[in-house]
Amino acid sequence: MTKQRIRDILRHGQPDDTITVQGWVRTKRELKEFTFIEVNDGSSMANIQVVLDATLPNYEEVLKRLNTGASVEVLGTLVPSPGKGQRIEVKASSIQVYGESDPETYPLQKKRHSFEFLRTIGHLRSRTNTLGAVMRVRNACATAIHRFFQERDFIWVHTPIITASDCEGAGELFTVTSFDLSKIPQTQEKTVDYSQDFFGKRAYLTVSGQLEAEVMAMAFQNVYTFGPTFRAENSNTSRHLAEFWMVEPEMAFCDLEGDQELAEAFLKYIFKFVLETCSEDMEFFNERIDKSVLETANNIINNEFERITYTEAVKLLEKADRQFEYPVEWGIDLQSEHERYLAEELFKKPLIVTNYPAGIKAFYMRLNEDDKTVAAMDVLAPKIGEIIGGSQREERLEVLQQRIQKLGILEEDIWWYLDLRRYGTVPHAGFGLGFERLVQFMTGMGNIRDVIPFPRTPLSADF
Amino acid sequence: MTKQRIRDILRHGQPDDTITVQGWVRTKRELKEFTFIEVNDGSSMANIQVVLDATLPNYEEVLKRLNTGASVEVLGTLVPSPGKGQRIEVKASSIQVYGESDPETYPLQKKRHSFEFLRTIGHLRSRTNTLGAVMRVRNACATAIHRFFQERDFIWVHTPIITASDCEGAGELFTVTSFDLSKIPQTQEKTVDYSQDFFGKRAYLTVSGQLEAEVMAMAFQNVYTFGPTFRAENSNTSRHLAEFWMVEPEMAFCDLEGDQELAEAFLKYIFKFVLETCSEDMEFFNERIDKSVLETANNIINNEFERITYTEAVKLLEKADRQFEYPVEWGIDLQSEHERYLAEELFKKPLIVTNYPAGIKAFYMRLNEDDKTVAAMDVLAPKIGEIIGGSQREERLEVLQQRIQKLGILEEDIWWYLDLRRYGTVPHAGFGLGFERLVQFMTGMGNIRDVIPFPRTPLSADF
Repeated sequence: MTKQRIRDILRHGQPDDTITVQGWVRTKRELKEFTFIEVNDGSSMANIQVVLDATLPNYEEVLKRLNTGASVEVLGTLVPSPGKGQRIEVKASSIQVYGESDPETYPLQKKRHSFEFLRTIGHLRSRTNTLGAVMRVRNACATAIHRFFQERDFIWVHTPIITASDCEGAGELFTVTSFDLSKIPQTQEKTVDYSQDFFGKRAYLTVSGQLEAEVMAMAFQNVYTFGPTFRAENSNTSRHLAEFWMVEPEMAFCDLEGDQELAEAFLKYIFKFVLETCSEDMEFFNERIDKSVLETANNIINNEFERITYTEAVKLLEKADRQFEYPVEWGIDLQSEHERYLAEELFKKPLIVTNYPAGIKAFYMRLNEDDKTVAAMDVLAPKIGEIIGGSQREERLEVLQQRIQKLGILEEDIWWYLDLRRYGTVPHAGFGLGFERLVQFMTGMGNIRDVIPFPRTPLSADF
Repeated sequence: MTKQRIRDILRHGQPDDTITVQGWVRTKRELKEFTFIEVNDGSSMANIQVVLDATLPNYEEVLKRLNTGASVEVLGTLVPSPGKGQRIEVKASSIQVYGESDPETYPLQKKRHSFEFLRTIGHLRSRTNTLGAVMRVRNACATAIHRFFQERDFIWVHTPIITASDCEGAGELFTVTSFDLSKIPQTQEKTVDYSQDFFGKRAYLTVSGQLEAEVMAMAFQNVYTFGPTFRAENSNTSRHLAEFWMVEPEMAFCDLEGDQELAEAFLKYIFKFVLETCSEDMEFFNERIDKSVLETANNIINNEFERITYTEAVKLLEKADRQFEYPVEWGIDLQSEHERYLAEELFKKPLIVTNYPAGIKAFYMRLNEDDKTVAAMDVLAPKIGEIIGGSQREERLEVLQQRIQKLGILEEDIWWYLDLRRYGTVPHAGFGLGFERLVQFMTGMGNIRDVIPFPRTPLSADF
């Protein structure tokens, strides 16, 4: 008799199998001659029902201690379940309570709790149905990401978290320091003397691993990052975190065409993997959280992504029979309302918009022949909006130098990035996917704080 | 004709196959009627040899541009190689140079470079044989880790990088702040007013995800972390990094016995996976870096780990026929010389030492019945020393409360950690593995800065 997870017992267990169940009590129902408890071990949404016969030697003593949240080990035999909703149940031959859970103080009682409330008990909320399902789906997404890239011979590279480079310009930066903030050393000119700090200069938390991923792509051809990134933006919204995980593939010998192909294959792979491995959790989300998540997932899996240029997109938006809050004209950054109109109403499937105006995109994106647009792409999906942003990178030294000069970035600050264009430069491309956004879209969860175990947001770094 | 990686062409390519090779020139050898170039694309240590016939239309023009480091695309046909050391080579039908590499300034010429020098060109060093092999092995180790845990139904949990809790006590902490360091807000009492900082309190970079992993294990039974951790220690050694990746499994319903079993299976799995998937790279390390790496790996794979208690270890050390620098007596923390004596000389295989004195171990380790030792374990390996440290955790609320009180940790600072013992507590255990240490041991690399793409150390956060 080996230990088995509840999910596997529910799937494969046969009557008369002797089993051990270890988990936490979700509910208890006392009848006259026996008691039912539902036990969950986090392996699945479903609990296993355990029948405790009043003839068990420690029945009376154990009963009092079997409250919601208590941890138990049950030895028993599987029997066909006469009740509704389950094929089998456990007839207990013995039960041990490891840890009790005082019903007077345990915050997770049987009633429904708001997600806001659950965030205040971040150390317990993963024991609920919804957060449990989120974390299993999150794990499946992460696993799918690694599998996808490893199957394609991409190398996982760990780009640095602490960086002295601030030229990505993707928003506000957190400072990392070993200074005692009550005694900041000063230079003779009364400025902060960073030369005395741990790294001898000002250091930040990274906002993206892309520049370093490009370094690695120039050695290994295909690489990807999958790690935490940071924004010190004071945004208290349902879509922003100060700390979040990002996936950034980077491919040498690849243009915008290849980048689009990878992005499409990548999204299809992840959604398919999650539907296959977490079907029960996904059905739960579809039923309880957002009635469209399965449709959205299937839409992504089963449709060839539409591809249009930004210029075409602007024309389509200008022709649209509706008032947008943000007026459309060539040169603007597409807003969420525009993106959703294109994906949801016009094409009714995922689409990739390419070749955006240079003025609204980052310095490293490759300038097109027209001298006005860059080889950028955004992947937009129905119900989701932008889920991936990427580009072919500017591999031509002179063009890149002109670009950064215009933007006031000093060559000495990214000399090493420029070196990649000096020595064996090649066309290359990549994209970024915000991992929590992906999980949010996958599950339909309304607030991004509920798809990461311990969210970090303004004024909040609990647990 | 599809694009193929050089590793696959070398393994599976057949004469007359038409192929495309994309990569970077390692060497060029000009003869009278043709020129040989060796091309590498990062997929393997081995280069592919390309023969350029002088009759190629752009031969003269291309030849000047084919210097070490230049990027090329070659179309051609595979032919049996008459030369030594390779089965096949490419007869080029066309060649394109994407990016040149000025031999006057390109730092990576054919000669051997010291690892110290290579660290100064961190953006190029992965293009060398040794660093290339390191990063492939690193990727294989990371992949093995995810596979091992996912096969066993562990959930990958992303524990927070930014934390407001400093009670792990594992060393010096980096502060994370959004303050302008030249204008630190002060309270009326002239102390730093952290309430005005981004998180409303003092925040740090994490030193371990264990406490949060315990939270998750209490919901999902088996979980693991795999993410960056930080130490602001001013240690300029070959074994310390300020930023490194750590793996921390945590298992509910598990004692020290189960913890040891997992650690042994885990190490065996990783070493086996790497030997199988990176045999060429591992042979390179064995030949060029450390003649014992294959022996060490096989020793780990093929031996059942010895298990002894700390008390037994101390007795064995006291009986040893040698002078240790640090004298041995019950109560001391074992030093590297002691660990290596036990693993290399006495047992000549990996061993797990358990049940260390409580006084030298962390507050969360489970107190044994003897009231003197805790259920801790260290896995020691020949040539390696300590590679894993773990423990069964103290699951009893009162014992834990007494322990932290003695250490001056305030209950209000880890109320949520104590809550895990209040509600459904169970025996649980886990361990930590420093990922870069693992890669260092796997490859035999002498300096830990050479097994991570962009090392962060005192006064150094380049690239």
